[in-house]
Amino acid sequence: MNEQRISTPGIARRNEAGRGALAARTRGAVHVIGAGLLGASVGLGLRGRGVEVTLEDLSPTTVALAADYGAGRVRAADDPAPALVVVATPPDVVADVIERALATYPDAVVTDVASVKLAPFAELTRRGVDLTNYVGSHPMAGRERGGAIMARADLFKARPWIVCRDEETPADALSLVEAVALDLGGVLMEMTPEEHDRSVGLVSHLPQVVSSLLAARLVPAAEQAIGLAGAGLRDTTRIAESDPELWVQILGANREPVVEMLDAFGADLAAFADALRDPEHAGAKRRIADLLAAGNRGVARIPGKHGSSERFAKINVLVDDRPGELARLLTELGELGINMEDLRLEHSPGAQIGFAEIAVLPEVAERAVSDLVERGWRTL
Amino acid sequence: MNEQRISTPGIARRNEAGRGALAARTRGAVHVIGAGLLGASVGLGLRGRGVEVTLEDLSPTTVALAADYGAGRVRAADDPAPALVVVATPPDVVADVIERALATYPDAVVTDVASVKLAPFAELTRRGVDLTNYVGSHPMAGRERGGAIMARADLFKARPWIVCRDEETPADALSLVEAVALDLGGVLMEMTPEEHDRSVGLVSHLPQVVSSLLAARLVPAAEQAIGLAGAGLRDTTRIAESDPELWVQILGANREPVVEMLDAFGADLAAFADALRDPEHAGAKRRIADLLAAGNRGVARIPGKHGSSERFAKINVLVDDRPGELARLLTELGELGINMEDLRLEHSPGAQIGFAEIAVLPEVAERAVSDLVERGWRTL
Repeated sequence: MNEQRISTPGIARRNEAGRGALAARTRGAVHVIGAGLLGASVGLGLRGRGVEVTLEDLSPTTVALAADYGAGRVRAADDPAPALVVVATPPDVVADVIERALATYPDAVVTDVASVKLAPFAELTRRGVDLTNYVGSHPMAGRERGGAIMARADLFKARPWIVCRDEETPADALSLVEAVALDLGGVLMEMTPEEHDRSVGLVSHLPQVVSSLLAARLVPAAEQAIGLAGAGLRDTTRIAESDPELWVQILGANREPVVEMLDAFGADLAAFADALRDPEHAGAKRRIADLLAAGNRGVARIPGKHGSSERFAKINVLVDDRPGELARLLTELGELGINMEDLRLEHSPGAQIGFAEIAVLPEVAERAVSDLVERGWRTL
Repeated sequence: MNEQRISTPGIARRNEAGRGALAARTRGAVHVIGAGLLGASVGLGLRGRGVEVTLEDLSPTTVALAADYGAGRVRAADDPAPALVVVATPPDVVADVIERALATYPDAVVTDVASVKLAPFAELTRRGVDLTNYVGSHPMAGRERGGAIMARADLFKARPWIVCRDEETPADALSLVEAVALDLGGVLMEMTPEEHDRSVGLVSHLPQVVSSLLAARLVPAAEQAIGLAGAGLRDTTRIAESDPELWVQILGANREPVVEMLDAFGADLAAFADALRDPEHAGAKRRIADLLAAGNRGVARIPGKHGSSERFAKINVLVDDRPGELARLLTELGELGINMEDLRLEHSPGAQIGFAEIAVLPEVAERAVSDLVERGWRTL
């Protein structure tokens, strides 16, 4: 493994290049091991592009659900060998499964979608596994809840998809994995495993720990305090719903960068608390203001701050808290020919009304609002 | 000031009681001092209910903008004295403005909407100001951006509105302030100033600091790392966009509870980092998992959080991806007399089925599932 960053002069061009040749390239056979959220989303997306997908999972229930869901068919013993294997198992077994896939399908390219890249690579290297046919990758996509039933064909759309390779990776293997990423709508990026792990440590693992620990402070809180929670608390703690078992694995596999970042964050926190504790101390207020302003600058660096949901316009409709009211709203939307792309229901404690946030295509938003108002609905 | 919690047997009834008598009660005159987001929203909402609103702000530009926006008219020197004054200035001047309002309009009830309650109350008491006509309050509402132009008449709708009073507060003054809160759609809560400040410290001030410091870690980060940012980072850092100047004031005014919470959070963070640093140490993995699981429990306590409130039972119903299916499900729920408390819809464009996660009162969950299954719905 070359520890340096691989220069990638062609990546922009490859991101630009046409998509869709995957079905031919894979000769119709991609095998997905691990039929959870990511595996089922890969299967769903590839099938939508005419690729034949077979599925495998330790759990018969999981694989059957994913197949019912449309993510592929359960792999049979006499199926021909796949051209590509996508390993989408939990991180703690990913090295084992990659090793087994390389041995079982010696002519296939094997990739994985695990969220930590250095540890499995180092483990496979330590075991002396021939990694010629392996190209590690990581689509930056996920949801708070896992499972095939949460899968989406468009889960990877416009999301970064990191591919890790070294100088010995055959061009064919690399381009096959890149074709999958591109066909699923991902944006290709190339990084070394070290760069990858440090980057996701910052943008994913540190926020996860911070969010979880913030939410943990709510456990002993008084009921009346929790009752005051607003959007700020909800947003900052949303990812604290994540699966602890999965995150023990992820954080354990990326502990060096994460510990370093937790220490740096902890030092900022202590400095902030000290300045607030003794606000008359020289420069204390200035330090508080500086740290808050640094937060402004940091958040401003995040690209696409408002997210991929920007594809849709949001309509907020007030809905009386009575059985049948939301059904009536959705029925009327259907009558108006408005296709609902997504729906969120907001409901405050004690309120007699809630509101439905309905995502629609931007070009129909204005008409939807005026038609709904005309029918007596109140919009925000 | 009575430091104990005031018992409020009548609050539920008052929240239930009819609204709208405010215009008569105020004899048509509410004066709002400070014409920013909150002041202009109060004005806009009250005018919509037939109340005459006058406005005042240190900045002629601000007050003119708010008046143009429809929040009220600029107060003239010969206007009759108001029945109620709402102080909606920045926190650092709120005590001064309350003192001045009480002196200028000795027959008026004075309230404020500042987000910290103990510090101004203590300051006014220290100055010997007669607080008989003062009732502090705090609507838990806001937006990331301030200013009259962001004002909304429904800003307070279904949001908690805390009223702080003591045993000497005249019933008339209290009920006038409560009438404003109710007429603007707020949900009344009563707390002592101490309870209030500790509660908002937890659900608002601590998350603000944590979010700002997390975002501040992005300032020195590599561009390629930031490029990987996803919804998790965006959500956890959204409130880091807040105005540093305002937050220096808020945090300074509530520093004792906030420092205490920052210290407790910092201790959790250090314990987490230590466990991750030395994962082979006895119990380290267990400690990591426990803290992450505590995060799950904490976020589950937040009311109105999609799919997480423990007050409700969850039913997962598979919905075929055909137009009208969800409306049919909700219609049938209505027919069954099942009130839906929350709804989360999951569907993927390529998938053959989606599912609706429906929150209902625990006592009806079992019947809801069996009735739905009887009608041919599939549940998870």
